Amino acid sequence: MKKFLFVLLLFSATVSAQQALLHSPTGKLELTVSLDQAGILRYQLLQDGATVIAPSVLGVQFKDAEASFDRGMVWQAADTTVWSEMWEPVLGEESTIYNDYHLLTVKLSQPATGGQIMEVQFRLYDAGLGFRYYWPAQDKLNHFVIADERTQFSFNENPTAWWIPGDYDTNEYFYVKSTLGEVKASRSKAFTEIGTRHTWSEMGVQTPLQLKTAAGRYINIHEAALTNYPVMQLEITDGGYSAKAHLVPNIFGDKAYLQAPCQSPWRAINVGSKATDILASRMILNLNEPSKIKDPSFIKTTKYVGIWWEMHAGISTWDYAGTQDGSYDINNRKPSGKHGATTERTKVYIDFAAKHGLDAVLIEGWNTGWEDWFGKWKEDVFDFVTPYPDFDVPGLSAYAKSKGVKLIMHHETSGSVTNYERWMDTAYRFMKKYGYPAVKTGYVGKIIPRGEYHDGQWMTRHFNRVAEKTAAYGLMVNMHESHRPTGLNRTWPNWIASEAARGNEFNAWSSGNPPEHETILPFTRLMGGAMDYTPGIFEIKMSTYKPGATEQVHTTLAKQLALYVTMYSPLQMAADLPENYNKHLDAFQFIKDVALDWDETYYLEAEPGDYLTIARKAKGINEWFVGAITDENSRTATIDLSFLPAGKTYTLMLYRDAVDAHWEKNPMAYTIEKTQVNSGDKITVALAAGGGAAISIK
Amino acid sequence: MKKFLFVLLLFSATVSAQQALLHSPTGKLELTVSLDQAGILRYQLLQDGATVIAPSVLGVQFKDAEASFDRGMVWQAADTTVWSEMWEPVLGEESTIYNDYHLLTVKLSQPATGGQIMEVQFRLYDAGLGFRYYWPAQDKLNHFVIADERTQFSFNENPTAWWIPGDYDTNEYFYVKSTLGEVKASRSKAFTEIGTRHTWSEMGVQTPLQLKTAAGRYINIHEAALTNYPVMQLEITDGGYSAKAHLVPNIFGDKAYLQAPCQSPWRAINVGSKATDILASRMILNLNEPSKIKDPSFIKTTKYVGIWWEMHAGISTWDYAGTQDGSYDINNRKPSGKHGATTERTKVYIDFAAKHGLDAVLIEGWNTGWEDWFGKWKEDVFDFVTPYPDFDVPGLSAYAKSKGVKLIMHHETSGSVTNYERWMDTAYRFMKKYGYPAVKTGYVGKIIPRGEYHDGQWMTRHFNRVAEKTAAYGLMVNMHESHRPTGLNRTWPNWIASEAARGNEFNAWSSGNPPEHETILPFTRLMGGAMDYTPGIFEIKMSTYKPGATEQVHTTLAKQLALYVTMYSPLQMAADLPENYNKHLDAFQFIKDVALDWDETYYLEAEPGDYLTIARKAKGINEWFVGAITDENSRTATIDLSFLPAGKTYTLMLYRDAVDAHWEKNPMAYTIEKTQVNSGDKITVALAAGGGAAISIK
Repeated sequence: MKKFLFVLLLFSATVSAQQALLHSPTGKLELTVSLDQAGILRYQLLQDGATVIAPSVLGVQFKDAEASFDRGMVWQAADTTVWSEMWEPVLGEESTIYNDYHLLTVKLSQPATGGQIMEVQFRLYDAGLGFRYYWPAQDKLNHFVIADERTQFSFNENPTAWWIPGDYDTNEYFYVKSTLGEVKASRSKAFTEIGTRHTWSEMGVQTPLQLKTAAGRYINIHEAALTNYPVMQLEITDGGYSAKAHLVPNIFGDKAYLQAPCQSPWRAINVGSKATDILASRMILNLNEPSKIKDPSFIKTTKYVGIWWEMHAGISTWDYAGTQDGSYDINNRKPSGKHGATTERTKVYIDFAAKHGLDAVLIEGWNTGWEDWFGKWKEDVFDFVTPYPDFDVPGLSAYAKSKGVKLIMHHETSGSVTNYERWMDTAYRFMKKYGYPAVKTGYVGKIIPRGEYHDGQWMTRHFNRVAEKTAAYGLMVNMHESHRPTGLNRTWPNWIASEAARGNEFNAWSSGNPPEHETILPFTRLMGGAMDYTPGIFEIKMSTYKPGATEQVHTTLAKQLALYVTMYSPLQMAADLPENYNKHLDAFQFIKDVALDWDETYYLEAEPGDYLTIARKAKGINEWFVGAITDENSRTATIDLSFLPAGKTYTLMLYRDAVDAHWEKNPMAYTIEKTQVNSGDKITVALAAGGGAAISIK
Repeated sequence: MKKFLFVLLLFSATVSAQQALLHSPTGKLELTVSLDQAGILRYQLLQDGATVIAPSVLGVQFKDAEASFDRGMVWQAADTTVWSEMWEPVLGEESTIYNDYHLLTVKLSQPATGGQIMEVQFRLYDAGLGFRYYWPAQDKLNHFVIADERTQFSFNENPTAWWIPGDYDTNEYFYVKSTLGEVKASRSKAFTEIGTRHTWSEMGVQTPLQLKTAAGRYINIHEAALTNYPVMQLEITDGGYSAKAHLVPNIFGDKAYLQAPCQSPWRAINVGSKATDILASRMILNLNEPSKIKDPSFIKTTKYVGIWWEMHAGISTWDYAGTQDGSYDINNRKPSGKHGATTERTKVYIDFAAKHGLDAVLIEGWNTGWEDWFGKWKEDVFDFVTPYPDFDVPGLSAYAKSKGVKLIMHHETSGSVTNYERWMDTAYRFMKKYGYPAVKTGYVGKIIPRGEYHDGQWMTRHFNRVAEKTAAYGLMVNMHESHRPTGLNRTWPNWIASEAARGNEFNAWSSGNPPEHETILPFTRLMGGAMDYTPGIFEIKMSTYKPGATEQVHTTLAKQLALYVTMYSPLQMAADLPENYNKHLDAFQFIKDVALDWDETYYLEAEPGDYLTIARKAKGINEWFVGAITDENSRTATIDLSFLPAGKTYTLMLYRDAVDAHWEKNPMAYTIEKTQVNSGDKITVALAAGGGAAISIK
């Protein structure tokens, strides 16, 4: 990894005793930070002279303190720095990332506590603003507890938002589009079937929060580098004109236990004149620390199949005996005959992966505990090393190796994290012994330690601990039901993906994901990092498995292919059953071909909730892939191929909706076309209602 | 270990449809169990026809249940069994223990929940009654949460009690003597300097609770086999005429998360006509399960010195740099010069142990973290494997081995149990690598997981987990600041001792332990198992270390010797500094000689709060040791030597208070006398105020 670094210490920001003014590298954004007569700090952000963030309060309140850093502060100093850097991610949407910002550090003191010091660090990019609170080591401040964070995001209007409700335990909601002022009234639309949830206010929403102003400006609010702090959610105030940080507490109402020197995560405001600016921003990655993994050679793109969708489809089960009565005495149980993770079934997947050049096979339900895993706040459920009697770990490990296929481990914790932490070392050693390179973790259920939430500080530390410990063992991790990511895949590139949103599985057994869902996710959930969305469902209708079932995937088959490009992840599942792929091997060819790591990415067109077209160049080879998707409305995508190097002719394979395709009425109708193109071409592709198109170019 | 077992299934208890009557093996105790018209269960216990427990309610209330096992129950069946057994503890006060009881099992159903079943199992010994609730595996009951236990202990009077206040986090209190009805009024006497405490009612007391009736009957209430349940404390009701079980909750008020089949611990009522009957009872051990350790050869009596009292005395410190500011950057710190656990100082203790034939050396403060260990609810304090720069683990391990001395590991968790559980395997492997056979654990501070208490179910499971895991590694464990023991040293004999009461250390820096303290502990704390009281302080006055200090040990030196006999433990510290022992090697001879494992124990005379004389025969050899102690009053102990085999003459060494000795005014004056005795002799020994005497006989 090459890295180029320029630091200029002389810099021309305007700094007065109580106010500082900072411009982004090209001058596009302008930040003003000021302290008023009451010692309250505010910031204001302009883009091209227009307001992005109106003057908004900054500050933090401590628990049991005589005074906090929320008022009565004294402006001590303001320093500015220029930073220009280029770095190369292990895996990513681009092979080279530029990290250019102007840094303003405002140093504040609190006389009421004898002179405690806090800094607020602002990194102003052309793409947006990141800022965080930092408490240096100091005599007057050692341990402290965050009671509240005052951080405010104010707008001069009531913007349109794509949001999910504030919830301490889950992010697996529909996205709702409304103005911020309509969040409360629109709340009933924000539906989830998830059992473990904890909403906290009718005015609460989660980040990443995508906003759009009346003037067509796109603003995205999230956070970066969440390592030792609770998740920041947002409380809408002032009729939608403002939002305030709401930190996820523990049962005591405490937000974070900290010890100086320490800092909050970065609060990240991406700003774009057009929607694609938001997607193209690398600010959240840039706000994270560089990789802590010295030898990342074990971190590899992974295309996988798995014993998984068949359980969601209801034709096999995670458990062995088909009972849900809690018994551990599996060896004396009669198998139900529906257990998914059998040795024989796993070999079918291994054979399929080997035949088609896929990297790996995930097997869920391989280990004992599933007879009594959910909903009882039970601590000792899984041990992560004991297979069911019909699952031969050493045998399958050897079989997979002989076929050149990897096995992916599955660690469902059922939310019992104390139990998982006791077993982690043992479980990871077990993985190393049997050659598993990666683990999918799960956190379905109420958290143990009882009194903690999925999104609280304790769990933040756990997720980071898992990333660090798997890295120490040379393992990749894909976290499901974790808090949503914040760009930590820069720091821990082995944290290869997360779920942390409403994934494709909901289409199998719930009201499903509406056709617009995948056009919103890149503006929300994916702002923090890769998602294991598990696309690639070809057998769209669940009535295939359950006669009379009305559930279905809410996309066309072609759109399922497009998702491999539009939903960035270096880990991608081909989520359907081998039997279903075997019926459509022509369409499956796209899944086989598509790259998972990229030199360049081109955001051709996008509007959250409506449509999205992305092109990417595969890393190190002259292959390009394009994904175009639409919401419930049909549309014609125009794809300008000028990203192709000029002067050559390329073979383009187009996987598109058939003319009569429709996500609900005729979802599986697709057409594959082959044509020759060059850099000057613009092609148009008709997308069906709820449809999409996938393109490969060589 | 030989075991003799007789089970008679035919048995003549009187069982009617709604009532059962049971007698103890010799008929001394009589139990009546009955169900009233409201379906409420009660029990009554008589000794020699007199009331011990007046009719008292039994029952359990479930959380979020339509009905519980507290009323409306239906009597299904009552079965009786005779049990007669003899077993041999790995280490103990006797080499053979008789376990003879009559068992009554009352089976109850709850029609309001469709017929859920609960059994109440009563084991009636001549020494007392044990009973527990048991929920068999059943279709109607799987997971459930205990909201309250109704168990009542009613008396026909307001008995005298020796008690400490109910507290979820600590048992390190003075004992108060009052009637139960005076508990609230006497509360101010129940003092502790412990920072982490959580009292719950002015009417709350802890068990073991020693009672004495007006007629001179001794009743002791405790519990046995606490493995998956919270500690039972007691709430005094009815003006002292009754006590009710109070289970320690978690922050949600939940008492226990259970899953059938399962049971409560045994509720244990020891009954005696005289005080020594209570001490002689083995009922609590008998109520526990047999040892789960197949090869107990690693479990050995351990007499040890350690780098410990010198920290309590204030002349050295646990931490390295003498700062308490939280920095971990030890290697860049200047040592304060007061750090106790240095390589050089440890060698002094090793040399001393080797010279005098002691088994081991404990070293506290050897590992990093002590700069910031207490009072901040901080999770990541210690890692249990990183020594301070001035403590050479491999070097000391080799040095100790060359001298035939063992090192005892110290794991202070600071109450951060999540952190300790993450490190346990690594820490125990570290111990095995360096040859440490035993670990002293500590739990000073508020518990993490936040929301749990020292005495709650979660911590019960932790303490049991530590016992099991150390056993798996072939290690002994001595737990400090744990919940008080309940006889589990039968099941886990590697759980060699606990603290769990106000130990000798309080004498170094607090108001101290009153002279009566050690006459009460055998009736309270020690009922559940061995205590690491750390006797043997020879340099009584703390002004020796701190000019002007008024603290002192509240016993004479001779009484410190007597404690090695009166306070049973197979692990005993010689707690003072080698330099202090070197000044009194004649008295130290008793500590060198005294056995820690016994064939027989003779409880010669006792009154809680007043005096105690115990004689014991060393296991496998013809040596006897006697300890006699008194409270703040001087007294003459009469010691009948008839426990010695007749027909031989023995050499008796008497370590007694000098004639002018007094615990406060002249505590270190002692006399050593040698004489010849035989079985027919009765000797009288004058004990000073706060004094004692120790005797060895060969």
